[in-house]
Amino acid sequence: MTETVNSKPARRHRAGRLPGRQDWSSWPHYQAANAGFRGYWYPVCFSNQVGEKPHAVTLLGERLFVIRDKGKVFGMKDRCPHRGVPLSFGNKQFPGTVSCVYHGWTFDLETGELKAAITDGPQSPICGKVTQPTYDVEERLGMVWVFVGDGERPHPIDEQLPEELVDNPAVVGVRIQSREGNWRFACENGYDEGHAKYLHRTSLWRLFKPMPVWNTTKIVRRGRWIFRVQQEQHWEADFPGLGPWSGTAWYKARPPKTTTNVGNTATHREVNPTIAAQEFPGFASVSMPGVLRIVYPTFIHYEFYVPVDADNHLYVGVLADFRKGFRALPFYAKYLGAVRWLFHGQFSGQDKWMVEVTDAPPEKLYRPDDSLLQWRKLAEDVTEERMDRLRAQGLVGD
Amino acid sequence: MTETVNSKPARRHRAGRLPGRQDWSSWPHYQAANAGFRGYWYPVCFSNQVGEKPHAVTLLGERLFVIRDKGKVFGMKDRCPHRGVPLSFGNKQFPGTVSCVYHGWTFDLETGELKAAITDGPQSPICGKVTQPTYDVEERLGMVWVFVGDGERPHPIDEQLPEELVDNPAVVGVRIQSREGNWRFACENGYDEGHAKYLHRTSLWRLFKPMPVWNTTKIVRRGRWIFRVQQEQHWEADFPGLGPWSGTAWYKARPPKTTTNVGNTATHREVNPTIAAQEFPGFASVSMPGVLRIVYPTFIHYEFYVPVDADNHLYVGVLADFRKGFRALPFYAKYLGAVRWLFHGQFSGQDKWMVEVTDAPPEKLYRPDDSLLQWRKLAEDVTEERMDRLRAQGLVGD
Amino acid sequence: MTETVNSKPARRHRAGRLPGRQDWSSWPHYQAANAGFRGYWYPVCFSNQVGEKPHAVTLLGERLFVIRDKGKVFGMKDRCPHRGVPLSFGNKQFPGTVSCVYHGWTFDLETGELKAAITDGPQSPICGKVTQPTYDVEERLGMVWVFVGDGERPHPIDEQLPEELVDNPAVVGVRIQSREGNWRFACENGYDEGHAKYLHRTSLWRLFKPMPVWNTTKIVRRGRWIFRVQQEQHWEADFPGLGPWSGTAWYKARPPKTTTNVGNTATHREVNPTIAAQEFPGFASVSMPGVLRIVYPTFIHYEFYVPVDADNHLYVGVLADFRKGFRALPFYAKYLGAVRWLFHGQFSGQDKWMVEVTDAPPEKLYRPDDSLLQWRKLAEDVTEERMDRLRAQGLVGD
Repeated sequence: MTETVNSKPARRHRAGRLPGRQDWSSWPHYQAANAGFRGYWYPVCFSNQVGEKPHAVTLLGERLFVIRDKGKVFGMKDRCPHRGVPLSFGNKQFPGTVSCVYHGWTFDLETGELKAAITDGPQSPICGKVTQPTYDVEERLGMVWVFVGDGERPHPIDEQLPEELVDNPAVVGVRIQSREGNWRFACENGYDEGHAKYLHRTSLWRLFKPMPVWNTTKIVRRGRWIFRVQQEQHWEADFPGLGPWSGTAWYKARPPKTTTNVGNTATHREVNPTIAAQEFPGFASVSMPGVLRIVYPTFIHYEFYVPVDADNHLYVGVLADFRKGFRALPFYAKYLGAVRWLFHGQFSGQDKWMVEVTDAPPEKLYRPDDSLLQWRKLAEDVTEERMDRLRAQGLVGD
Repeated sequence: MTETVNSKPARRHRAGRLPGRQDWSSWPHYQAANAGFRGYWYPVCFSNQVGEKPHAVTLLGERLFVIRDKGKVFGMKDRCPHRGVPLSFGNKQFPGTVSCVYHGWTFDLETGELKAAITDGPQSPICGKVTQPTYDVEERLGMVWVFVGDGERPHPIDEQLPEELVDNPAVVGVRIQSREGNWRFACENGYDEGHAKYLHRTSLWRLFKPMPVWNTTKIVRRGRWIFRVQQEQHWEADFPGLGPWSGTAWYKARPPKTTTNVGNTATHREVNPTIAAQEFPGFASVSMPGVLRIVYPTFIHYEFYVPVDADNHLYVGVLADFRKGFRALPFYAKYLGAVRWLFHGQFSGQDKWMVEVTDAPPEKLYRPDDSLLQWRKLAEDVTEERMDRLRAQGLVGD
Repeated sequence: MTETVNSKPARRHRAGRLPGRQDWSSWPHYQAANAGFRGYWYPVCFSNQVGEKPHAVTLLGERLFVIRDKGKVFGMKDRCPHRGVPLSFGNKQFPGTVSCVYHGWTFDLETGELKAAITDGPQSPICGKVTQPTYDVEERLGMVWVFVGDGERPHPIDEQLPEELVDNPAVVGVRIQSREGNWRFACENGYDEGHAKYLHRTSLWRLFKPMPVWNTTKIVRRGRWIFRVQQEQHWEADFPGLGPWSGTAWYKARPPKTTTNVGNTATHREVNPTIAAQEFPGFASVSMPGVLRIVYPTFIHYEFYVPVDADNHLYVGVLADFRKGFRALPFYAKYLGAVRWLFHGQFSGQDKWMVEVTDAPPEKLYRPDDSLLQWRKLAEDVTEERMDRLRAQGLVGD
């Protein structure tokens, strides 16, 4: 089931045959998705942030709130239709409802129906005549997830989560951070083959680990994911007219003798059996609507790039360790003692810095950017398929 | 002279016959009045804030300054016609004038005439060739009032002030606060029948006073004012499918047995004779250009919503007690000790909060919003009459 | 070689024959030069601010950086063509180059050529296919100067500097300050005849010196410069209907008996021989692209108004004293002890204040503004000549 999308000889770049060297017109759906792709589940906050009071969030440019009632989380548009005041300023006056702070308009959390306008009394004729838009909500991985669509019935969230997280016990460490910059730059940065070796070579996380100077890579699709498969790895290079340049140092570990696609650098560790069972073709993979998976021998790191609006996104970093019971304890020690600060913190902070200042198009792409091009193509193709389904259901025009 | 404008049976709402359920196109003058209605006197600051140096204010989007000369206050456009620098940065170099700080252009405060350009010497040929726009200014209630019109001669300010304040001795407490949000939302909030009972039920000002759950109301016009007349008051209600809801509590006063239109809740106080003599048909009334009057047994509370620009307004809260001489002392104690903090402060702060976040149109109105609709109609009708007068004077086109 | 441009009788103003009383349409090049005139050298920072790491600046709305390599300073556009990240976030990985922090694209500082894309290895086919725009850079007066043009070969910087600074030894004190406001308002303010006497009369720098109330002036062109020549000086005036007004005071020095054009007020000092040798026809002069020269008996003060963008400029104040060797020491004492704080500081701060709030056009000019009109005309004429040269070279269209 592994199919090579593009082995991408450098010549094709040279000839300028690849689309999108300067603009994004080759990917109209992608270009239009400033504020994110509709039709997906997105994590918006931690589960324990959502209680009996409304918790406001912005997702794909839409202001909504989530609230818990009898243990279940509900989502609703955060603008009272009466006078435009945020409903999240209100609270529960009756079980299963939320009442606007201004005049007491009271909406059913499940259906959105206006059940009472308190200040108009029990016989208010407006009841039942107004329905507030609601959102489908789920809880997974300790987070609340919201579906934003175009009126279609949402697919089950488990069909969208990384497969290995659905069926296997795992302990996870999660960091959610509000960041500036468009979500696409965040996603492209995450999957970008070239930057890790150069930008991150100075990070503390890589202090004792060598980094290749450059790689050759192919992009492979398997199911919903495209994988970046490392081929050659070059740890030293001599640049014509400039001189030698190296990703190694006397205080760093030795580079590995063979190229591996679990972990990107040197490793002597045994691969965790659950991870090994996935037979991932490549170290880094990405899927819609902007989910990155980086596979290490003993854990997997995920990044969910959640569009807040055209200029802001949530960075959701998840570290998953496929262990059970008391064996999970060392994971927490490692996560809280190191990963959270070094990897989800300082290392990822370098990405944050770049995402804030990336300003494309125009752009000039080079060979390693094949990873970006294939991601954009995946987004474009999958969205075109979705639009076909919506058209068939009459939910969008032709 | 009391005429019922609209007894407003709920059915009419239900049938959707009322205009403006979603947009404001039924009130074109009102819709256009983003930055306020022209042709009125507006309070801009306390009298004691205006001395011999220019005091800059913005009113209806116009930048102007007020300044005192020989006891009288003058108003002038705050942009030097020479190079656009604020005249309010300047000062008086000669009595009865103001000189621009930059090059000493010197304008007559009364007429706006350029009397000297100091740096061009006494024979400067530009003198008398430039006239700076001036504003009519009055002082009332310890405040400076400015007329903003379209070239017409201003009406006497006393014709615009609440009548009872012109002819009766009264002591007043005033709070002026710069607030965000459009002045119309502030005015609509003030006259809004529905919000007081719900939004303000949690205010300290109402801690020991019951609030009705809902009322029936009619709107009555008398002269320049429309009055909200309370009919039925309901102190408890049982909402179908939801349950009971009450505006009373064991620690609050008992609700009154009969509906009164002086004060909105329980009262055992005798009505002040000056207030009683007004024979106000209703508890709350509003007049152009955005003045609210709330009548209590022993005092009257006014709110003037002064448009600064489309996004900001001044809240001017005035509490008037119709007493004389030494009997005024307890009023100040009450105002400074309680009213200023509880009523003009925390209670009114709830309104401030709502006005900042109101976002209409679009809107969906319900029965109690008849108060808003009648206010908008009043503004529209009165403005149409004014436009007729201006047209007759040739001050605006047909 | 001195030619009187306009003796400017007041009558011509009165008749409204001067262009531009309200708008700037008489000077289309000047009006278009919101972000500065192209084709000139501009000082951007102190020389000692530029080392081996990129130093970012904005000039005429263009983001660029300067960097030192083997003692020489280079300038380059500060946007990596790859993904739009600032190149100034990067550093030198190889001598004579700068590498982008994101993916290691490496540009030659001299030519702008892409010499390596480190993360694509030594054979990267994109090398030599991308050229980053560079800027010509010089160092003079302890500052770094950048040429911004339209593709023409820059003229030698010494042809643009004030002539007397090129050939004579001088010690200089320099203040560079980032200021709000359009550069043209800064330049017009500097050359403006009228404001000095009025705005600055309250400055500490003038505390003990008298200021004229008004002058008559003529504007004279000599070479690249136009000079403001003082004719009559009036130290007292009596304004009709207002009263007397004076620029003198008992604690100030006596006004001079005769009008001088070296220094604007009273002086008993001997004129420095280098300054005397220039035979400047007037006290204040201005040249393109916005350079002011104020001549005092023992030093010359310059102001360079450097356009950052349409809303910001650099104020570069330079005080030059034409002395040599150990005789320079008292200059530094005087500069650091007084000039820097009083003249380049508080006095010039009054200008800063005005430039921030000037808002023209529209404007209404008066007789002393002939200085502004002649400056605008100079800018217009000189720019038209430059456009002719560029057209002849085919660098701009007809």
